[in-house]
Amino acid sequence: MSTNLNLSCVMVIFGGTGDLTHRKLIPALYNLKYEGILPDNFAVISVGRREKTTETYRNEIYESVKSFSRFKMDDEKWKELSERIYYHRQDFSDDDGYIRLNDFLNELDKKYNTNGNRVYYLAVAPESFETIVGKLHKHCMADNSNSWRRVVIEKPFGRDLKSAQFLNQKINEAFAEKDIYRIDHYLGKEMLQNIMVIRFANAFFEPIWNNRFIDNIQISSSEMVGVENRGGYYEKAGALRDMVQNHMLQLLTLTAMEPPVNLETESIRDEKVKVLRSLQVLTPELVKKNVVRGQYGPGKIEGRGVPGYREEERVSPDSKTETFIALKTYVENFRWSGVPFYIRTGKRMPAKSTEIVIQFKPLPEILYFKEYGIMEPNLLVIKVQPQEGIFLQFNAKRPGTSNIIVPVQMDFCQNCHAGSNSPEAYERLLYDVMRGDSTLFTRWDEVEHSWRFVDNIAQVWNDENTEISKYESGKWGPKEADELLARDNRKWWNIGEVSFKNI
Amino acid sequence: MSTNLNLSCVMVIFGGTGDLTHRKLIPALYNLKYEGILPDNFAVISVGRREKTTETYRNEIYESVKSFSRFKMDDEKWKELSERIYYHRQDFSDDDGYIRLNDFLNELDKKYNTNGNRVYYLAVAPESFETIVGKLHKHCMADNSNSWRRVVIEKPFGRDLKSAQFLNQKINEAFAEKDIYRIDHYLGKEMLQNIMVIRFANAFFEPIWNNRFIDNIQISSSEMVGVENRGGYYEKAGALRDMVQNHMLQLLTLTAMEPPVNLETESIRDEKVKVLRSLQVLTPELVKKNVVRGQYGPGKIEGRGVPGYREEERVSPDSKTETFIALKTYVENFRWSGVPFYIRTGKRMPAKSTEIVIQFKPLPEILYFKEYGIMEPNLLVIKVQPQEGIFLQFNAKRPGTSNIIVPVQMDFCQNCHAGSNSPEAYERLLYDVMRGDSTLFTRWDEVEHSWRFVDNIAQVWNDENTEISKYESGKWGPKEADELLARDNRKWWNIGEVSFKNI
Repeated sequence: MSTNLNLSCVMVIFGGTGDLTHRKLIPALYNLKYEGILPDNFAVISVGRREKTTETYRNEIYESVKSFSRFKMDDEKWKELSERIYYHRQDFSDDDGYIRLNDFLNELDKKYNTNGNRVYYLAVAPESFETIVGKLHKHCMADNSNSWRRVVIEKPFGRDLKSAQFLNQKINEAFAEKDIYRIDHYLGKEMLQNIMVIRFANAFFEPIWNNRFIDNIQISSSEMVGVENRGGYYEKAGALRDMVQNHMLQLLTLTAMEPPVNLETESIRDEKVKVLRSLQVLTPELVKKNVVRGQYGPGKIEGRGVPGYREEERVSPDSKTETFIALKTYVENFRWSGVPFYIRTGKRMPAKSTEIVIQFKPLPEILYFKEYGIMEPNLLVIKVQPQEGIFLQFNAKRPGTSNIIVPVQMDFCQNCHAGSNSPEAYERLLYDVMRGDSTLFTRWDEVEHSWRFVDNIAQVWNDENTEISKYESGKWGPKEADELLARDNRKWWNIGEVSFKNI
Repeated sequence: MSTNLNLSCVMVIFGGTGDLTHRKLIPALYNLKYEGILPDNFAVISVGRREKTTETYRNEIYESVKSFSRFKMDDEKWKELSERIYYHRQDFSDDDGYIRLNDFLNELDKKYNTNGNRVYYLAVAPESFETIVGKLHKHCMADNSNSWRRVVIEKPFGRDLKSAQFLNQKINEAFAEKDIYRIDHYLGKEMLQNIMVIRFANAFFEPIWNNRFIDNIQISSSEMVGVENRGGYYEKAGALRDMVQNHMLQLLTLTAMEPPVNLETESIRDEKVKVLRSLQVLTPELVKKNVVRGQYGPGKIEGRGVPGYREEERVSPDSKTETFIALKTYVENFRWSGVPFYIRTGKRMPAKSTEIVIQFKPLPEILYFKEYGIMEPNLLVIKVQPQEGIFLQFNAKRPGTSNIIVPVQMDFCQNCHAGSNSPEAYERLLYDVMRGDSTLFTRWDEVEHSWRFVDNIAQVWNDENTEISKYESGKWGPKEADELLARDNRKWWNIGEVSFKNI
């Protein structure tokens, strides 16, 4: 573990007036401060294009912290933090701005004894990534000869393999791979950090985590919201780029990876990349057969009528952007040969839920099966959000004088109890950037292989001129998604929707 | 499943004024009536030595049902049941009494259309078993040429192998093995019926249920009460005969047995007997080394002072009867080779709890182990009573920005929730006697092999003249019991005492 001395730094947030900064970054810093984890030698410069004073800015973020922090507002602690947060106005392409910013940074370095260590957090639209990194390079602000300089890149990292490669090259001109922190905020979620612990620190999960015992794995992330005010961005992204390329494939790699040599960052990343390299190559035929895309039409969410995607703001009335994707793939290695991985994500679904469902193979059709007919399969579910925990569905005898077998649930929920208060993903991630631990960030080759997988799909969709499947808002996607599993005599487990109960 | 017609019978309860009848048998019949399971063609004759009228008897058992039934008193249902319950006075050795009883039975057969089917329930002291069965035989009341006649024998079935063989021979003169229902009421408990379902109807328990993955199994039954008013009986029995010969070995066989060929009674019993036959033969050396006996001294239970065993009523002041036993044994077959089974039972312990703890082997000492030191082992616990359910202890990451691994618990409790109301063991068992299902009763060879195991221990204790180890009331037995496991670098898991909590 690092000592506070090593954490000393000034954090520069490009996009300091944006949504992410207000809702996530500043509240995360406050939470770290509240817990006493934030170093004393620390300051923040929020960079924005709007004209405002540091005092105005501090008042604005005070309101944000009140709304979005998981801790109550402690005025003492807020004062200590906020008097180290400064606002700096500049355009991202303005050289003069960077010169002024650098002077300001040097001044704060002296004031807070931060040794010239810097985190550059790019909480801006992806179009600005290249510009900002280029300017930091040009003005020697990325130079780490006497101190550490790290850059944090928000998603999306490119929009296909080619653009990601180009962006990466530009960043590499300024920063070394070890100093580049590509954020996938899912990796900061408690249960994603827990997957490896659950798998590799427990004697009864480890031996059955393979194709001898597992029938299939379903990785599912559903939202109830639509595209909201992000129509402009979403039209260019779609569910494939917005969710599958990053979050869904990260869930898959953690679920499927081999035990690493040790717990060091690069050892873990090596194993994750091996999973991505083992993914079945999706030929055009396989894409047509095993990938379903959908787009929500009008419908009802919690009884309230909602518009279809094409009626949303800044969305084209004949848009072919997918708001839903379901696919089947395989990890072609010894552990997983023959086990389908089903991935599904969509907006305007009946429930908000992200989970990994591991369905075990059926037992031989003898004994209880013979006597009482089909039994439900065993399920192990890792609940990522909104509930964090795991549960097992297994079969037990229903209490009573007859021998009826019913599925029951054994539950471990770590955020269901009063008083539980898991850290926000961004707390963990910001803290890790400061202490130089990049385990929960995406290495370049992870990005690269994810895009290879996703590009194969995008290419086919681009080439073919078929209509996208529609689904009613409030349903689990188009009927083709159900057919994808029904063909294999399987079904989706809609865990988020169903409330399993103890008997 | 049997139809109601086949259940038609008159049940004769010898010992109709005794504790068991009042607390368990009549309330169980009422519960079955309440649930609508009891056949219409049904009547009860309670046989006792005391002079009283049927009306007085009905009033007495009305009070018992009010106190001990799990359902509220429904006067309508009680009336329907109680007007079929009759009191019959006789001495158990009085031939004339049996002649009158038989006449009465024939009369009720006509009245209730019960076809001559009879359950003879021997809820009497074991000294009377032989007498009653002999008289039933002599008066042709066990004759089943035109109807079925079954006998239910309460424990203890003998006090060693020899006496059990003798008793069995006497019963066999009157009844065939298939009509003898030797009760071990533990087998009627919900979770004992559930062990086979959990093991053989679940894909993720079955593969790890063997010596490759399991480190040791602890079968533990603790009571907080002392000997109470049963000193006279207990002085002759002790924990070995009172608990190990029957209940504890039944728990062991269900935990260790191979999957049976099918779910038929004899198939299951065959597998249970195989376990008993595979038990390590306890030589005198092994008994001295691996069996610990103890007797409670004075102490405190829930803050209240309690006397030692030797100060209890009808207990000898220099009694050597054990109130505690702990032992280590092995099931010497392919599945369990090398896995110790630890059995422990005692009175005046800190908690009332019966459970089976399955401790899994440690994982390789790499990864999390290397980084964070010793981790708690995985446990799967089958809770038999007072809670009914199972739980898993496994390792997870504690929520927070650091990587601390803690044991957490995933719990399934089927009688912890408001409104849950598991049937009493005796309900299930009485119902099974009526429908002729003897799966949950003990076959003769089970009894025989259990006594062989127990006799080896009793013999050594009898031969040696050493003092019995004392333990303070309110403690987990004598220190030798802890040493038994400490020698193997293990410890007892006192699940009943500890309240595992989700983090």
